[in-house]
Amino acid sequence: MNFINKLSAAWTANDSLLCVGLDPDMAKLPPQFQNDPDGIFKFCTEIIDATADLACSFKPQIAYFAALGAERQLENICSYLRANYPHIPLILDAKRGDIGATARQYAREAYDRYGADAVTVNPYMGSDSIEPYMEWSERGVIILCRTSNAGGSDLQFLQVDGKPLYQHVARLVAQKWNSNGQCALVVGATYPEELAQVRAIVGDMPLLVPGIGAQGGDIAATVASGKTADGSGMMINSSRAILYATRQPGEDFAAAARRVALETRDAINLHRG
Amino acid sequence: MNFINKLSAAWTANDSLLCVGLDPDMAKLPPQFQNDPDGIFKFCTEIIDATADLACSFKPQIAYFAALGAERQLENICSYLRANYPHIPLILDAKRGDIGATARQYAREAYDRYGADAVTVNPYMGSDSIEPYMEWSERGVIILCRTSNAGGSDLQFLQVDGKPLYQHVARLVAQKWNSNGQCALVVGATYPEELAQVRAIVGDMPLLVPGIGAQGGDIAATVASGKTADGSGMMINSSRAILYATRQPGEDFAAAARRVALETRDAINLHRG
Repeated sequence: MNFINKLSAAWTANDSLLCVGLDPDMAKLPPQFQNDPDGIFKFCTEIIDATADLACSFKPQIAYFAALGAERQLENICSYLRANYPHIPLILDAKRGDIGATARQYAREAYDRYGADAVTVNPYMGSDSIEPYMEWSERGVIILCRTSNAGGSDLQFLQVDGKPLYQHVARLVAQKWNSNGQCALVVGATYPEELAQVRAIVGDMPLLVPGIGAQGGDIAATVASGKTADGSGMMINSSRAILYATRQPGEDFAAAARRVALETRDAINLHRG
Repeated sequence: MNFINKLSAAWTANDSLLCVGLDPDMAKLPPQFQNDPDGIFKFCTEIIDATADLACSFKPQIAYFAALGAERQLENICSYLRANYPHIPLILDAKRGDIGATARQYAREAYDRYGADAVTVNPYMGSDSIEPYMEWSERGVIILCRTSNAGGSDLQFLQVDGKPLYQHVARLVAQKWNSNGQCALVVGATYPEELAQVRAIVGDMPLLVPGIGAQGGDIAATVASGKTADGSGMMINSSRAILYATRQPGEDFAAAARRVALETRDAINLHRG
């Protein structure tokens, strides 16, 4: 089953548009994991077990592993996810971007080494920096369009023929780069009106939407602006608000993560119509 | 010594603007390295030893290591370079790009884990995706501006206020993002007239210039267009043409690499004036 179909099946199976982001910041992990050489793996797999029936996807952020030299733990987390929850898409958040021969190496990293169903990539280097990923025809390519950070506007909001650059990226992907039907876009929740404009450009293409939770995006406005006609079409990501949900000392982190994931999934579903 | 000063000293010490790119494609390595678990390290360090008096920098491309799970070998190559050639800048070619907290993890990866003097980054996510690197005040940040691949024009050549996007990036970096003097730009050799326009915008800022060698860029036009008033200002990269320089079976790869590196350095110097 290809990425888009697998995602669609997960939306239905778990009645969820929630993507759980795995950003294991060592300084924030519960103390029992901090001095354990396998602590990141144990923490992330407990989070996965606690939320797998509430999520439409899991999204490890590779930077947190790369900073620590913890690639082996990331490999093991991905293997665990594929073995135990093969119906939940695994998205490697790596935001890679490089020319052909090098992009192919990054595709091998994401798809072959980590077994990801999809990987995030950066559009700045253009079509031939995206094409190598298409050789893995069952996998997804999730292209940065409009990002949720303040500085995102520096380039993405520059006006090109009277429209902001991010809309040109949306159009390029929808009309040219998505010829194999493997593409999705990253569009932040912090600007719901812009999410609506991207949705109008790209039809039913899935959108990965960061920016709710710790980043403060509004769930009702996000869902209203980004959903497709059938009330799906999005992977709405929350990372820190779920991973570090414990409110008082002694509270079980996995139970707290489950509580926030459930609240978030249900808050999203309230607005799907 | 900070990155810019270290680079300047290396230009002078080796009378060279040549950057040797380390892109170890396993399928192209000499046979004695192919089944050796430490083969990439051995190959790259032999290349380094053969060319270190001819180069102004070395630039490992992390994708080739990431595809194979060979991060440990990359760590060891970086340690070898720093221990044996501490005066030659080490540039990690990673083209990272992400928001604040995540960008900081990538900075830790490049500067702390691999000990790089500079790292390449992507500008698409804007100022707050660049700022975290500036906390390492002695290191360099080399920002993609105009890339040497055909698809580079898809975004970089879109017209913003009558100028192509890549010139806006050059201006943003020169006028805003470079407040600490740590920045350089990537500008491909395949478009010498555009290299000249970037040079006019950024003054003496160093430029990392890929696209000669296997990619076919013209050395004379590249040097004429990109040099500063003192005949320096560039790291002109060659990877495959040096790494895989052997012309006949049995020829020593390191001697062949040295021959091509010497020819390339001297061809560049012919046009520095």
